[in-house]
Amino acid sequence: MKRRQFLQQSSLAAIASSILAPVDLLASGKEGGDVKWDGTTARNIIFLVSDGMSIGTLTMANMLLQRKEGRSSSWMKLYEQGKAKRGLMDTASADNLVTDSAAGSSAWGGGVRVPNGMLNVNKDGSFNVPILHKFKAAGKATGCVTSVPITHATPAGFCVNNASRNSQPEIAEQYLQLRFDVMMGGGTEFFSADTRKDKQDLFAKYAQAGFAVARTKQEMLNAAASQPLMAVFHGDAIPYALDHAQDTQLQATIPTLAEMTKTAIERLSRNKKGFVLQVEGGKVDWGAHSNDLGGLIYDQVAFDEAIQVAVDFAEKDKNTLIIITTDHGNANPGIFGGSKENKKFDSIFQFKQTNDWILKGITKDSSVNQVRERVEAALGFGIRPEEAHGLLGHYIRPDGEGLYNKAKLPFRELGELLGSYTTVHWASMDHSSDHVELTMMGPGSQLMKAFMKNSDLHNLMLDATGVKKG
Amino acid sequence: MKRRQFLQQSSLAAIASSILAPVDLLASGKEGGDVKWDGTTARNIIFLVSDGMSIGTLTMANMLLQRKEGRSSSWMKLYEQGKAKRGLMDTASADNLVTDSAAGSSAWGGGVRVPNGMLNVNKDGSFNVPILHKFKAAGKATGCVTSVPITHATPAGFCVNNASRNSQPEIAEQYLQLRFDVMMGGGTEFFSADTRKDKQDLFAKYAQAGFAVARTKQEMLNAAASQPLMAVFHGDAIPYALDHAQDTQLQATIPTLAEMTKTAIERLSRNKKGFVLQVEGGKVDWGAHSNDLGGLIYDQVAFDEAIQVAVDFAEKDKNTLIIITTDHGNANPGIFGGSKENKKFDSIFQFKQTNDWILKGITKDSSVNQVRERVEAALGFGIRPEEAHGLLGHYIRPDGEGLYNKAKLPFRELGELLGSYTTVHWASMDHSSDHVELTMMGPGSQLMKAFMKNSDLHNLMLDATGVKKG
Repeated sequence: MKRRQFLQQSSLAAIASSILAPVDLLASGKEGGDVKWDGTTARNIIFLVSDGMSIGTLTMANMLLQRKEGRSSSWMKLYEQGKAKRGLMDTASADNLVTDSAAGSSAWGGGVRVPNGMLNVNKDGSFNVPILHKFKAAGKATGCVTSVPITHATPAGFCVNNASRNSQPEIAEQYLQLRFDVMMGGGTEFFSADTRKDKQDLFAKYAQAGFAVARTKQEMLNAAASQPLMAVFHGDAIPYALDHAQDTQLQATIPTLAEMTKTAIERLSRNKKGFVLQVEGGKVDWGAHSNDLGGLIYDQVAFDEAIQVAVDFAEKDKNTLIIITTDHGNANPGIFGGSKENKKFDSIFQFKQTNDWILKGITKDSSVNQVRERVEAALGFGIRPEEAHGLLGHYIRPDGEGLYNKAKLPFRELGELLGSYTTVHWASMDHSSDHVELTMMGPGSQLMKAFMKNSDLHNLMLDATGVKKG
Repeated sequence: MKRRQFLQQSSLAAIASSILAPVDLLASGKEGGDVKWDGTTARNIIFLVSDGMSIGTLTMANMLLQRKEGRSSSWMKLYEQGKAKRGLMDTASADNLVTDSAAGSSAWGGGVRVPNGMLNVNKDGSFNVPILHKFKAAGKATGCVTSVPITHATPAGFCVNNASRNSQPEIAEQYLQLRFDVMMGGGTEFFSADTRKDKQDLFAKYAQAGFAVARTKQEMLNAAASQPLMAVFHGDAIPYALDHAQDTQLQATIPTLAEMTKTAIERLSRNKKGFVLQVEGGKVDWGAHSNDLGGLIYDQVAFDEAIQVAVDFAEKDKNTLIIITTDHGNANPGIFGGSKENKKFDSIFQFKQTNDWILKGITKDSSVNQVRERVEAALGFGIRPEEAHGLLGHYIRPDGEGLYNKAKLPFRELGELLGSYTTVHWASMDHSSDHVELTMMGPGSQLMKAFMKNSDLHNLMLDATGVKKG
């Protein structure tokens, strides 16, 4: 039914009385909230992606915060306070029920499902225009923030055309030409002359081209407001939030995802025609690929802190559409029934380091006791000698599974054995095809449907901002 | 903000223009739908529970129907057509992040979270009044339909107070006193003199007390409209939908969940003061507990057919609140990345029998070839001799895991080995604490919030129908 037709058929009084609950829900923040959006069109979009987030990941982070800090996650609070709408999203790619992050981000970024591994390139080689090009052409400020390399699949899917997500050195060059306003994340290896095969010093080239280049948190904060910013903080992905919080050196030099998000919004929001920002909690996906509970759950919490930064801005600004989602599930972890579930789950409160930290500190020459001590230092509880012995066995000829596990360390085995201590188990070390959570708040969210394809979000973002398609 | 206050502060015109999309969504069936509810109060409620349904189960059933039959599931269609709202539900029990079905149904049924295993009984032994008592007192017709024993936890949570869900023989007696209008499911063992320890013939007692008693589909269809109906079709749970569809004898005598639902609605809807019906796809949970893909996914499809029956009624009736949800996740299965995911997943099209059928037809004296032939007859593809040999090894001293696996058959091992053929993997054989899907359609659905506790649904149902609390 068309809008006009509907208005003709219904009296306004009847409308007002029959739909008061959703009015509250959308526009007035029923419980405690007091938000009114300024209109139905958004000036800004903040698009937040917890990469590879199964529903169990969202649930566990919420339960951790409820039990450890007595509060719900910022994401769930949006629902509890009636500030946001929810939907389910179908995440498939052009060629697969199970998408990868390149095709996932390209579906949003280009509006067309492409084969896995490709960035806004179709099977026949044709290109789809990435959404940040469209917004830039419309005069909006544009940017991406991530905890994995800034050249990684999810930011790249909003930014470039490339037949392979693995072309990260090339993507680092593409960004130089494209001149988005704020790009922040890990991945110095793709910019530095020391680590690039072609020995190009892209940092120097960015500086020459008028960018502010930041390699530390302080440089990020000090960067001149007038220049576009390329901020790259770590060789590959940024360290897991849990490990980061234990290391004062890392904290001094590398910002959190929330800190990057805050800086990005401050810079981008100076543009009077508005802005579009993608924020990716990229290491949530890496934690799932490694069945690394501390890595996964505390990076989901770090992502949640970035949500709060975005929401705080949007509630003041009143012209910002917030979209929160994930590109696909990964590993489908959960808290499962067994015995003493609550107590076991609460052991996560004491975690100090990730499984990544544990396994990278073990060598084939470590002793069983050293392994047990390292696990206890990281997680706050010991494992049995035979379990430590079993882990050590994998260091003689490393054979571990997992996508980002270059050293082939026994992540799967550690994740599995810890299940009896934490009651968290994993179905896989890979992406799932599960329909995923989709949340929208603010002007433009009225366009959201309860069930959408990933690729539908492209036009939704254009329609929400009144920016021309094509 | 209170309703009145809100109306004072906003002009009706502003309301009408700012919230038009949700109006469409809730009340007018935006795309293709043309449903208008007669008011904001519901006369009837149909509460549909897919027991133990992780989001992956919902997703896989939807993908199976899309790929096999070229249509979305009835559940997802409600979203696609803008007919229903969605929320997330927190499923914890009084004492555990991971609920069981007794505490799960009691949270809805009694409005209070109780410890696992208990039916509307608190830790201190006090009782919460089950919701069907309240609706019966208000003059509504009441009933339950399930694919597991009618005395099982999920129907019982709407109906009785009992300190143990395992007291199924006693619950069968409680139902006799309580005189609900329609009770249908499996579980003759709890009613028959042959199988009850106390040798009572409850079927005779129900008949003496004025019930129509049905033991077959035909008896169900022929039961006198004037009598309350107790229909019990199978010793324990009703056979899996997949096995049922292969057996003409079973089909002739045992109705599907959708057929039971249709009969229940026809009978209950004769009551002028309305009705409340719970429909449980109970064997979805049993399939998950057994990591039995054919059992799980085709019972989810059978549940989906019951949804369609309920929706068809509600769209004609215009006074019915439909609630669709699950009590908790289970096993968190999913289609996971690997290789040839689509082709492997599509192998499910050819399934003819469940893993339950496969494993119950094998003995310790079966040969490797017999096992392989049985698997191929059931699933349409063969397994390797060493895999068949591995399964046989478990029959010498059966040690299989799984809640409803009395014979201790190797369900976990079969589920795991089939993962390489189907690309479906499982995280556990037990319930998960995942937040779960919650869907509402029709009058009363305006009371739904985007995030709710299971126990909040109790008062929502009373408020939606204008029935007094307490």
